[in-house]
Amino acid sequence: MTVPFYSNQDIVDNISMKEAVELVEKAFCDYAQNKSKMPEKIYLNLPEFHGDFRAMPAYDSRYNIAGVKWVNSHAQNVKKNMASVSAMLLVNSPETGLPLAIVEASELTAIRTGAAGAVAVKYCTPKTAKSIAFVGAGVQARYQYECIREIRSIESVTIMDVHEATAQKLYTFIKEKDSCDVQICTDIEEATKDRDIIVTSTPVKSPILDKGHVGAHTHINAIGADAPGKQECSIDLIKSSQIIVDDTDQAMHSGDINTAVQDKVFLKQEILSTLGELLLDSSLIDVNQRSLFDSTGLAVQDMAMAGYFLEKIRG
Amino acid sequence: MTVPFYSNQDIVDNISMKEAVELVEKAFCDYAQNKSKMPEKIYLNLPEFHGDFRAMPAYDSRYNIAGVKWVNSHAQNVKKNMASVSAMLLVNSPETGLPLAIVEASELTAIRTGAAGAVAVKYCTPKTAKSIAFVGAGVQARYQYECIREIRSIESVTIMDVHEATAQKLYTFIKEKDSCDVQICTDIEEATKDRDIIVTSTPVKSPILDKGHVGAHTHINAIGADAPGKQECSIDLIKSSQIIVDDTDQAMHSGDINTAVQDKVFLKQEILSTLGELLLDSSLIDVNQRSLFDSTGLAVQDMAMAGYFLEKIRG
Repeated sequence: MTVPFYSNQDIVDNISMKEAVELVEKAFCDYAQNKSKMPEKIYLNLPEFHGDFRAMPAYDSRYNIAGVKWVNSHAQNVKKNMASVSAMLLVNSPETGLPLAIVEASELTAIRTGAAGAVAVKYCTPKTAKSIAFVGAGVQARYQYECIREIRSIESVTIMDVHEATAQKLYTFIKEKDSCDVQICTDIEEATKDRDIIVTSTPVKSPILDKGHVGAHTHINAIGADAPGKQECSIDLIKSSQIIVDDTDQAMHSGDINTAVQDKVFLKQEILSTLGELLLDSSLIDVNQRSLFDSTGLAVQDMAMAGYFLEKIRG
Repeated sequence: MTVPFYSNQDIVDNISMKEAVELVEKAFCDYAQNKSKMPEKIYLNLPEFHGDFRAMPAYDSRYNIAGVKWVNSHAQNVKKNMASVSAMLLVNSPETGLPLAIVEASELTAIRTGAAGAVAVKYCTPKTAKSIAFVGAGVQARYQYECIREIRSIESVTIMDVHEATAQKLYTFIKEKDSCDVQICTDIEEATKDRDIIVTSTPVKSPILDKGHVGAHTHINAIGADAPGKQECSIDLIKSSQIIVDDTDQAMHSGDINTAVQDKVFLKQEILSTLGELLLDSSLIDVNQRSLFDSTGLAVQDMAMAGYFLEKIRG
């Protein structure tokens, strides 16, 4: 048996941000309509190594594939100048179980997470939204920017990161790409003031974004919190926002709301809807009022990306 | 990044049955001493395709690796002349999360399951045990035989399978290997009468082996039941045996005892011990009385096999 192997570069060469955003939008619709399936992801926690691994299985009927993504999170790798996340995706035939492909999935993970952010922006903000603040300017902030600009005409960007070099990197990236106004800020109030969109993508475990930082009309993509105990947005902010989750169970367990759920100050019924439900019925939300998309990352997104990729390269 | 890929043949060429039995014995000891870790496996159930997939993560400190096995079970593949199980194992550094190897794991799964059966025989039977009955003569029966013969001098084998050709295949395999007496039986009473060891490895969902078939001194390796609803041994037989499990939670959820647990006719405290606990204290069992090893398959076994393999090929 030989199983074809595809690299991160193969993914980058074959899926544009525009395609990714369209794909992830379809993946959320499919999931909301039970055309794809996934059990809740499981964690292999290795606190002795300051990291964890997650196994994320899924089935996608659109591309007729099943598989699992295996992905780690080792935040301290950054200090060693190594990626904190590296992922691999195994793809199989759902009919026979036989392996079809092995896909390096670090880029795929980063792109589909950016794409989910863009889909949230599409459905949670008015078409006039034109300014973004990035709280946390690491690799994922770049993907959020690249995907969101496929959806909205961004005129102004503010960047805030505890590491100046990281902020500078995102600044340069955006400046080289677009002609919009970009500013690096040293405090969060300055960065987030009057913004249409705020993207948080930090590894923090206690809230850094508060209700006072966020306009009454602002949409937040809360990307960083994806494991129990992680939280970027304060309870006040959560309670005052229309909450959209990618998956209800997963968000309650490991999304930005997980601590509030654990502390019983935020209840399941306070979730406005899943992103998939919102795509099926956009009247659920008031795009002119504050909203928060709680992203945890779904295996069905990964599987849809892999399915599209495999179909494309096979021609 | 390039990740080395190893095939089923690489595993077969590098791990003998003897080595596998020793390895799996150590793996059970390590697990009982918390030197390895695994969350409970998760299932991606695809009843529409008469199959399922399982994600099985684990960490092994002996070989300093973490990883996941992704394995399917599609029993109806046999009708299409295809393997019902095919598995892949991703191996990573626990320190950084970076991928170290991709290992084809269908043979590895088959061998480590056989090896676990042999370890159970080592600790649950007297040294004089010399006869085996195989109920179900498929591929796994062959591995059970190959591994058990490393532990006990087998003089006599009986084989029973609903498919005559399958029984014949195992017969030929054993005859070509050893000089012991081998007989194919057409009914289960004939096959199991006066046997020291009985190995069940069938895909049945209702019991085929009853108390009446099994001697008061007999040890059973119950291999087939590895998912909720599967069961090979009757409640009476379970209730009258010293029950050894590979993992308590997993066996209660998907081992031979799962239906009895579900029906509340078998309680957790009726389990004698895990195989790992038994290896640490062999006085827990009376090897001259009926015993039943409920095998569900543990990710820590897979990880130990992969760790040993990688260490060996790297020299």
